[in-house]
Amino acid sequence: MSTKPYDLILRGGTVATSSAVFPADVAIEGETIAAIGRDLPRGANEIDARDKLVLPGGIDSHAHIEQVSAAGILNADTFQSATVSAAFGGTTTVISFAAQHIGLNLEEVVDAYHVLARKGAVIDYAFHMIIADPTEATLKDHIPKLVKAGHGTIKVFMTYDRIKLDDMQLLDVLHAARENRALVCVHAENHAMISWTGKRLLGGGYRAPRYHGISHPRAGEAEAFNRIIVLAAFIDQPIMIFHVSSAQGAARIRQARGEGLKVFAETCPQYLFLTADDLDRPGLEGAKWICSPPLRQPSDQEALWQALALGDLQTVSSDHAPYRFDASGKFMNGADPDFKAIPNGLPGFDAMVSQGRLGLPKFVALSATEPAKIYGLHPRKGEIAIGADADIAIWDPKREVTISAALLHDLAGYSPYEGRTVTGWPVTVLSRGRVVVDDGFLRAAPGSGRFLARDAGAAAVPTGHRGPEFDREQNFGAQI
Amino acid sequence: MSTKPYDLILRGGTVATSSAVFPADVAIEGETIAAIGRDLPRGANEIDARDKLVLPGGIDSHAHIEQVSAAGILNADTFQSATVSAAFGGTTTVISFAAQHIGLNLEEVVDAYHVLARKGAVIDYAFHMIIADPTEATLKDHIPKLVKAGHGTIKVFMTYDRIKLDDMQLLDVLHAARENRALVCVHAENHAMISWTGKRLLGGGYRAPRYHGISHPRAGEAEAFNRIIVLAAFIDQPIMIFHVSSAQGAARIRQARGEGLKVFAETCPQYLFLTADDLDRPGLEGAKWICSPPLRQPSDQEALWQALALGDLQTVSSDHAPYRFDASGKFMNGADPDFKAIPNGLPGFDAMVSQGRLGLPKFVALSATEPAKIYGLHPRKGEIAIGADADIAIWDPKREVTISAALLHDLAGYSPYEGRTVTGWPVTVLSRGRVVVDDGFLRAAPGSGRFLARDAGAAAVPTGHRGPEFDREQNFGAQI
Amino acid sequence: MSTKPYDLILRGGTVATSSAVFPADVAIEGETIAAIGRDLPRGANEIDARDKLVLPGGIDSHAHIEQVSAAGILNADTFQSATVSAAFGGTTTVISFAAQHIGLNLEEVVDAYHVLARKGAVIDYAFHMIIADPTEATLKDHIPKLVKAGHGTIKVFMTYDRIKLDDMQLLDVLHAARENRALVCVHAENHAMISWTGKRLLGGGYRAPRYHGISHPRAGEAEAFNRIIVLAAFIDQPIMIFHVSSAQGAARIRQARGEGLKVFAETCPQYLFLTADDLDRPGLEGAKWICSPPLRQPSDQEALWQALALGDLQTVSSDHAPYRFDASGKFMNGADPDFKAIPNGLPGFDAMVSQGRLGLPKFVALSATEPAKIYGLHPRKGEIAIGADADIAIWDPKREVTISAALLHDLAGYSPYEGRTVTGWPVTVLSRGRVVVDDGFLRAAPGSGRFLARDAGAAAVPTGHRGPEFDREQNFGAQI
Amino acid sequence: MSTKPYDLILRGGTVATSSAVFPADVAIEGETIAAIGRDLPRGANEIDARDKLVLPGGIDSHAHIEQVSAAGILNADTFQSATVSAAFGGTTTVISFAAQHIGLNLEEVVDAYHVLARKGAVIDYAFHMIIADPTEATLKDHIPKLVKAGHGTIKVFMTYDRIKLDDMQLLDVLHAARENRALVCVHAENHAMISWTGKRLLGGGYRAPRYHGISHPRAGEAEAFNRIIVLAAFIDQPIMIFHVSSAQGAARIRQARGEGLKVFAETCPQYLFLTADDLDRPGLEGAKWICSPPLRQPSDQEALWQALALGDLQTVSSDHAPYRFDASGKFMNGADPDFKAIPNGLPGFDAMVSQGRLGLPKFVALSATEPAKIYGLHPRKGEIAIGADADIAIWDPKREVTISAALLHDLAGYSPYEGRTVTGWPVTVLSRGRVVVDDGFLRAAPGSGRFLARDAGAAAVPTGHRGPEFDREQNFGAQI
Repeated sequence: MSTKPYDLILRGGTVATSSAVFPADVAIEGETIAAIGRDLPRGANEIDARDKLVLPGGIDSHAHIEQVSAAGILNADTFQSATVSAAFGGTTTVISFAAQHIGLNLEEVVDAYHVLARKGAVIDYAFHMIIADPTEATLKDHIPKLVKAGHGTIKVFMTYDRIKLDDMQLLDVLHAARENRALVCVHAENHAMISWTGKRLLGGGYRAPRYHGISHPRAGEAEAFNRIIVLAAFIDQPIMIFHVSSAQGAARIRQARGEGLKVFAETCPQYLFLTADDLDRPGLEGAKWICSPPLRQPSDQEALWQALALGDLQTVSSDHAPYRFDASGKFMNGADPDFKAIPNGLPGFDAMVSQGRLGLPKFVALSATEPAKIYGLHPRKGEIAIGADADIAIWDPKREVTISAALLHDLAGYSPYEGRTVTGWPVTVLSRGRVVVDDGFLRAAPGSGRFLARDAGAAAVPTGHRGPEFDREQNFGAQI
Repeated sequence: MSTKPYDLILRGGTVATSSAVFPADVAIEGETIAAIGRDLPRGANEIDARDKLVLPGGIDSHAHIEQVSAAGILNADTFQSATVSAAFGGTTTVISFAAQHIGLNLEEVVDAYHVLARKGAVIDYAFHMIIADPTEATLKDHIPKLVKAGHGTIKVFMTYDRIKLDDMQLLDVLHAARENRALVCVHAENHAMISWTGKRLLGGGYRAPRYHGISHPRAGEAEAFNRIIVLAAFIDQPIMIFHVSSAQGAARIRQARGEGLKVFAETCPQYLFLTADDLDRPGLEGAKWICSPPLRQPSDQEALWQALALGDLQTVSSDHAPYRFDASGKFMNGADPDFKAIPNGLPGFDAMVSQGRLGLPKFVALSATEPAKIYGLHPRKGEIAIGADADIAIWDPKREVTISAALLHDLAGYSPYEGRTVTGWPVTVLSRGRVVVDDGFLRAAPGSGRFLARDAGAAAVPTGHRGPEFDREQNFGAQI
Repeated sequence: MSTKPYDLILRGGTVATSSAVFPADVAIEGETIAAIGRDLPRGANEIDARDKLVLPGGIDSHAHIEQVSAAGILNADTFQSATVSAAFGGTTTVISFAAQHIGLNLEEVVDAYHVLARKGAVIDYAFHMIIADPTEATLKDHIPKLVKAGHGTIKVFMTYDRIKLDDMQLLDVLHAARENRALVCVHAENHAMISWTGKRLLGGGYRAPRYHGISHPRAGEAEAFNRIIVLAAFIDQPIMIFHVSSAQGAARIRQARGEGLKVFAETCPQYLFLTADDLDRPGLEGAKWICSPPLRQPSDQEALWQALALGDLQTVSSDHAPYRFDASGKFMNGADPDFKAIPNGLPGFDAMVSQGRLGLPKFVALSATEPAKIYGLHPRKGEIAIGADADIAIWDPKREVTISAALLHDLAGYSPYEGRTVTGWPVTVLSRGRVVVDDGFLRAAPGSGRFLARDAGAAAVPTGHRGPEFDREQNFGAQI
Repeated sequence: MSTKPYDLILRGGTVATSSAVFPADVAIEGETIAAIGRDLPRGANEIDARDKLVLPGGIDSHAHIEQVSAAGILNADTFQSATVSAAFGGTTTVISFAAQHIGLNLEEVVDAYHVLARKGAVIDYAFHMIIADPTEATLKDHIPKLVKAGHGTIKVFMTYDRIKLDDMQLLDVLHAARENRALVCVHAENHAMISWTGKRLLGGGYRAPRYHGISHPRAGEAEAFNRIIVLAAFIDQPIMIFHVSSAQGAARIRQARGEGLKVFAETCPQYLFLTADDLDRPGLEGAKWICSPPLRQPSDQEALWQALALGDLQTVSSDHAPYRFDASGKFMNGADPDFKAIPNGLPGFDAMVSQGRLGLPKFVALSATEPAKIYGLHPRKGEIAIGADADIAIWDPKREVTISAALLHDLAGYSPYEGRTVTGWPVTVLSRGRVVVDDGFLRAAPGSGRFLARDAGAAAVPTGHRGPEFDREQNFGAQI
């Protein structure tokens, strides 16, 4: 029985989990949560959490950091700037990407991102492996090793030149994932519809940022969702569909889940709070809001909120992909680019889902508990529970903040939410018991974040059911 | 800061909530949970929970206790026997019925059930008010008062002579519920299909218990679900559909929820673990398994498990409705009854949902946390959290038990699960910090349970959207 | 081989069938069509059809003629006025109703309508038997005899006091129809939703005609469609759903047909060409447009056109139900009636579906060929084929007519289409080779129409598949 | 007025159209039908049709004749043998393919097929243009010219190496078709699923013909249907989906049509009458039944019959693609080929849809009237009407025939229906008034068939509605 005082007490706050909200002190011993209670005995250190919310730190499960694109574009943030920005937003775990390009050795790619992250990260991190070149070596050698090494998730693209996979490659990756119990995450849009429409728009002289949205039809999202769902069901491989942006897309996911298919899905704040109108600003201002899939209509927003409420979508991530609004970023292809020549991506770390609409427990679930479960980090992360990492964000629920680039900590130099006033803001953020952010100040050193080896957890386990064609001969289903 | 020892420590167990499973001690102070932690200091009393699961006590939100039916039938249990039985099964809260019959004053009905429950209950309890006679007085006078007095839920029947409401009455009750923020629970089957088929079966000489199942077609369940969903959507009134038994029924609910309608639903263990084959035993043995809706097919079971996993159904309750297999119960209408003359109902308290299939957190959610939320008892009940009532069931996850009537504690005298061996059994059960059941012994006195006044919580709040016909004139929608 | 001249040649017209449009002469011998050809030899008589369309005479399969309602209301037309009006509109067969009320002997009812029709009709006719009192005698004695006597169709109501059947009665009638191979036609609206809303509207002082529409919610149409479809599928009895008015209703029918259920459906011109706006005229003018189901929105019209094009709806009928706009009709309950006190019904015979929208063959199919097939009159009626009755309407496709009451021939005294200009008008109408209407003049005597004995044809044959509950015991399905 | 005798009378038969069946003589004057009537005057020639059916000659709208595949394979038939075979089966019009391969000039391709057909055909014919190389020249130059020249239909493939189009090319072809009012026909299967599964099967040593079926999963059919439907809807271009083989595929088409999309579809006798069991014969015998999509299960057959009855599928064609069961055909790649090395295709001309199941008018509709309408040949073809081509098949409805290769007239050398006995057989077949087949003898000379220039008729007209992304700027939708 313990008699020495706890290392740290968060005193007098209101704890919120994905299920309940209740007043309690939280005691931390070393890196983990040791006790939750009322009137816990005095700790060696204490943080006054009265009138504050004590939440599990956010898990941003989809962010592009220090990532070189196929076209050679490097986004604006480093692991240091990105994780600092995330931490200021209440996020304590980030899953970014180790992005293979064609011709690259996947293990070397992962190693390289390890080096970058180890140096800069102020919070814990993991990687999704982007597979752009599913060679025999990638599939049979590197993936098995890397999944065993704690990289339980693979990301694939169905669009973007030089990185997209065709259906045959998708089947290969889905099959390799199944054999290694990895989860496959997908950027699903119909590439041809985007290219064909883009070509015709440019041919017709439609160059402004707003045509970016028009060139990514919602029907192309729904088509690609359908295709990857069919392919994954054929292989019996669980998938996560990233950044659902449209009502049609959400509907297709609901249908798949209703059929018992193991399909997970996320959306991002930009699809919940911004619309195509933002793309339609004078001049090239709209370039700031160019991301893919693009911002949609209010009716899509409603459908996404509904899909979150119903559990059709399980997580909300940032899809942080920052490009500066200058020649190093959005204008790297010249000062007067057409919409196809502007890099796709928004900075997103500091923006979080409104708590109010779905309630505090659902906010915790979407931003922390559910991503932890799906990506193999639970209950170590995403939970306020005994033995869990003391990754905690203390929010002041009454603080009003007007968002501006100056306030934020990424290197994008602008915010897509500039000028919006929000109520509720994280004031103190702890990672494994260490204070990382405190009242506007960074308290952690670069490199203090740690890599999180993980499998993809139950989410990646196949159901054991494959399509009827596989079932017709008994000794055959197992072999193919 | 507390220095005196906690009243009671549950030491060394594995705590499970609807989200997480983790090793922790649980400290109780008075009637509530005071702390959760590792190595908590010694308590005034301790219970050894090593190798045990520490779960929120179950909330059985659908049970018939000491209830007189319209036909004058009294079921086998008293509040004492029923709540003892429930407690032995790990249940610490029961919501039973205050059943109005035609001509009765609803307030007096509720008072009468209060008297019975106050005398006998060993665990906490609440009532759903059954409305069989929606007179002006019931709707305008009694319902408002009773909802304010903590009876936030109304139950209506679409079948059973003398208690069923017609569509006009359903609209009246739905409307009254909306005005008073109560939740409406429904037994939804098409009465005419049951009566017509029953009449023809008996006319054809089909008298055996198995024809009970045939006389309640699944299409009649789906029809009634559709009808009550349409009526409730027209009024914009949330509903809870009780005891979903069929794949078609579950599908209709999923569709309604997908349309944004506020439709909740439950199923019961008998629909998950038993099938129509049980009705089809030699002689009148099948009478033991006569309940309504009836037991269905394995394909229905699969659909219900899937619906639970998807969240289409949110709770699992017992629908405990015990009749002895003798002249006081199943044979009250004679020694050789046809299937229409046998009272409908199974004893169910001790049977619980298999943990294994959906995992421990989902088991906690379905049996405790979700009913607490839907019926306005959360976070006081259904949660292991600081300040919550110390309603806790300590389970031995390895104990193998073969179910037999002798083992159980209701007065039905038989179990529909007789002879089944289950792994995992509640060994110690606490209600508000008091030990109620300990290792096979009852430790609580009749009348020690308390009434739980509650509103129906967020579940009963209308969405604010009514059908298009209501929207066409602005000053009109609000008035009608 | 014939050498004598044909009795009558329709010379030089353009014949249209439900499949093709082609120039041809049509030769009539006695009462039937004897030849179709180019340059047929000279007939004993000839009608110049150059620049005219030669169509099968219309079959109006849903019309209320000389019918006493349960409330004692007699509508405006007699068989004479109604059939004259129909003939002027190009219709050569009408199926009206023999309406049983509670307490009446169905055979006597049918006899009474025979007397009326025999006296007045100028075109051929048949009856749907309305069953309001499905007693043992009606079901077991009268229906079998009457179906054998050529009354192969039964009509039932799910709404209207004193005539509506409850679900139990509907099952009885469906079952009797199945045993006798009759088709069951249904007016399907949820009675309680109409009554409850009406009561609340009147209670709130909403008395104007426009509230009639609001009191018949579309959700109530869809609900009743679902219910009758479920009941009919349970019995495996084909049904015809009358006067579909809403998008939701049409969708439910499409779903049922896609499941292989034998569900037929019609709509009426008023639902295709008029909207709720017509109800919303100053003062009581809107009373002219009060019919049930009520006029809906433009989006419903679009859905109905689409459903016709897809074949989800197979026929278009008038639902002719004329009430004069005076104290004998719309104001029989006083000079200032609320919307519930105004008789429901529109005069409709002279209004026909626009040919243009779906093309001429589809117009023929909807107005003649399909009703002939569904109601057991084909190929005698509804077809331009050798041996078919020479029931032919010769239309001038270019004639522009502005509709006015003065132009029409029913006794309603007003037209819901007053003032509309249409292009295309029937100029000569033949019934069994006799000229009934010629260029604005009536040429036939009252009583010259004949009763058409018919079975309901293939439409009424059950599929042989009944619900799963019926299938579980082999010797049982056939008996029940 | 005609006084001279008709050239030819078909005397005393029973005429069947897509709507009606009635006894009538049919008179032919020159190449067209001049009269239909009872007791027509004696003709210059007469054919005794007593106890026979007089049907419109069949239109086989999907047949591969004298076609070189991308792999250089020439199928077994010439225009002469193929059209003779078709004529013996009651078919009087065939639409075969003018198949472009990569690098070929489409106009030259069409010219070449003209030469072959002109020389050999004994019945009338037209071509669908297969586009495998949608170059600028093909799209902007050749397609416009060829559509104007009477080739109103384009065929594209989504599978088969060297001929399949990718999504970008499909969009280009759909767009070109829209601009020229051509109909696009599609072979829709997911190529990658076929290739991937085939590769794995062969890798696992699964070489037998039955694995052909397994390598073409039904999910791949449904996926490709979805994709082409989405692409076509995006362009607002009508499509015809060829040879639907699965329940899932039929369901997707029904859904699309219900949404108002202009999607037509066909199936073939092999999918209605044969199953995967035929592939599973000893040794290489199953090679005879290798076609794509492959033969499926009885449940698929039921779904296809249902889809035909509902009108979701409008036509039935042969997909005649004959390969001899020898080294010139099925074994061109060796004597012991794996399933991927066996040419895909069945001979099909003589096999026709059973009349019995859907009734004679529906048989006429599916085999003659509907393809005539969809492909721009109506009312000249596919109809028994005045002025229509006298393309007529006289069937003996009672003749029993046991199918054998010896009986048939194609050059495949085997029949997939070998040994089946059918009731009903064409005995005399006329093309434009000429007797082509008479009681087992060919009466027409090679080259007597004529090319049918046609546009694709109303089927190819876009709806005018394009996706929402096209609608957002007024002057933009028209240009892109």
